[in-house]
Amino acid sequence: MQETRLHSREKILFFNKEYISEFVYGGIDGAITTFAVVAGAEGAGLDLSIVIILGLANLIADGFSMSVGNFFSTKAEMDSFERHRQVEYWEVQHLREKEIQEIRDIYAAKGFKGALLEQVVEVITSNEDVWVDTMMKEELEMVRSDKTPYKTAGMTFLSFIVVGSVPLLSYLFANTNYIQQDLFLISCLLTALALGIVGSFKSMVTGKNLFFGILETLTLGGLAAFLAFFVGDVLEKILL
Amino acid sequence: MQETRLHSREKILFFNKEYISEFVYGGIDGAITTFAVVAGAEGAGLDLSIVIILGLANLIADGFSMSVGNFFSTKAEMDSFERHRQVEYWEVQHLREKEIQEIRDIYAAKGFKGALLEQVVEVITSNEDVWVDTMMKEELEMVRSDKTPYKTAGMTFLSFIVVGSVPLLSYLFANTNYIQQDLFLISCLLTALALGIVGSFKSMVTGKNLFFGILETLTLGGLAAFLAFFVGDVLEKILL
Repeated sequence: MQETRLHSREKILFFNKEYISEFVYGGIDGAITTFAVVAGAEGAGLDLSIVIILGLANLIADGFSMSVGNFFSTKAEMDSFERHRQVEYWEVQHLREKEIQEIRDIYAAKGFKGALLEQVVEVITSNEDVWVDTMMKEELEMVRSDKTPYKTAGMTFLSFIVVGSVPLLSYLFANTNYIQQDLFLISCLLTALALGIVGSFKSMVTGKNLFFGILETLTLGGLAAFLAFFVGDVLEKILL
Repeated sequence: MQETRLHSREKILFFNKEYISEFVYGGIDGAITTFAVVAGAEGAGLDLSIVIILGLANLIADGFSMSVGNFFSTKAEMDSFERHRQVEYWEVQHLREKEIQEIRDIYAAKGFKGALLEQVVEVITSNEDVWVDTMMKEELEMVRSDKTPYKTAGMTFLSFIVVGSVPLLSYLFANTNYIQQDLFLISCLLTALALGIVGSFKSMVTGKNLFFGILETLTLGGLAAFLAFFVGDVLEKILL
């Protein structure tokens, strides 16, 4: 019963807490970098086909490299948790008295004292798994994550590709009769819309103010895109 | 005493567990994406100055946008923790009996029973902060992170810029008499070296096999770079 209930709560959290973070990270980075490429290419007055090549190449390469980075990052955290857990198992076996005192300190801080405190210490330290579990949560403040590297990397890639393709949509589906400047304007609006949607999704899950969530996403996203455009522009003038 | 000891352990963890994850993530993404731009530009036979412009613009824009994504992602996790904590405070105030039973279930699972279990439940539920803290750690398996959005975003940016500038070094400091193909070869070697260093750093902290850590970083990094080069190349042939 206990197991089932905890499990179902974790499942909800798995979406709320874990995946949403990858979705927001991948989506925002995808939209901004692809838009930066488009803006930079537009700033340099490049042709429609070049904008598409640079945009798509960046989308796939950057989405993949971000997922690789995410894979290793999640794996490093998982490994770090396991390593600390191994150390705690070693400590409860070899530094028994010290670790018993640490459990005593932890439960004293919770308000236990006297004979009751000693009884609690005895129960906790009578089961090695419960003992280590307590040390992990209370001393190291580490919990085992539901995240697996494949899932977080997959979500990052998916989010990066889907949201990141938005700035390219107007170019990809353009009738060649369109003026390229209009395509760029449409790309700006669609990108802002995509960032707004990611921002609002984030707000809904974190329970924060919706308007403020959208505003901060758009502001920082716009700043990043402006910076990309500006750097490309300045460097072009200096170097060419 | 308790506070100070926990605090100092957290400080070590702060570097081991939190920052290392941002360093690995930012560094690998930075090196791969910048290298992808360089490889793509080389593949398209672009001039030295164009390689530098595209590379630097991408480095700064992508580093910034990744940091923005990281900022929101860390913030979303922080907000999610706070929201769940507020919910737990509400629950211990309004669904008192249900929450008392949950504490009873949690401590029964640890091996407490009978009168001792009831005494433990009484102490835990006599202090609202201890009660909520227990629910957060034991039921929801959530701990407050030491991470702040500014710090994780800052570390991501720094790592992205520093490691990500490596593929550009040969171009930036090139004597113009060099053959550009040689510069690309040097860039390949330096990038592999940088990925290897990030991989080995990761292995040292996670306590995993050093050789394997370097190998997997180089393999996935190489695959991402190849993909970037390949996509740029194929698209170029289709569209131009």
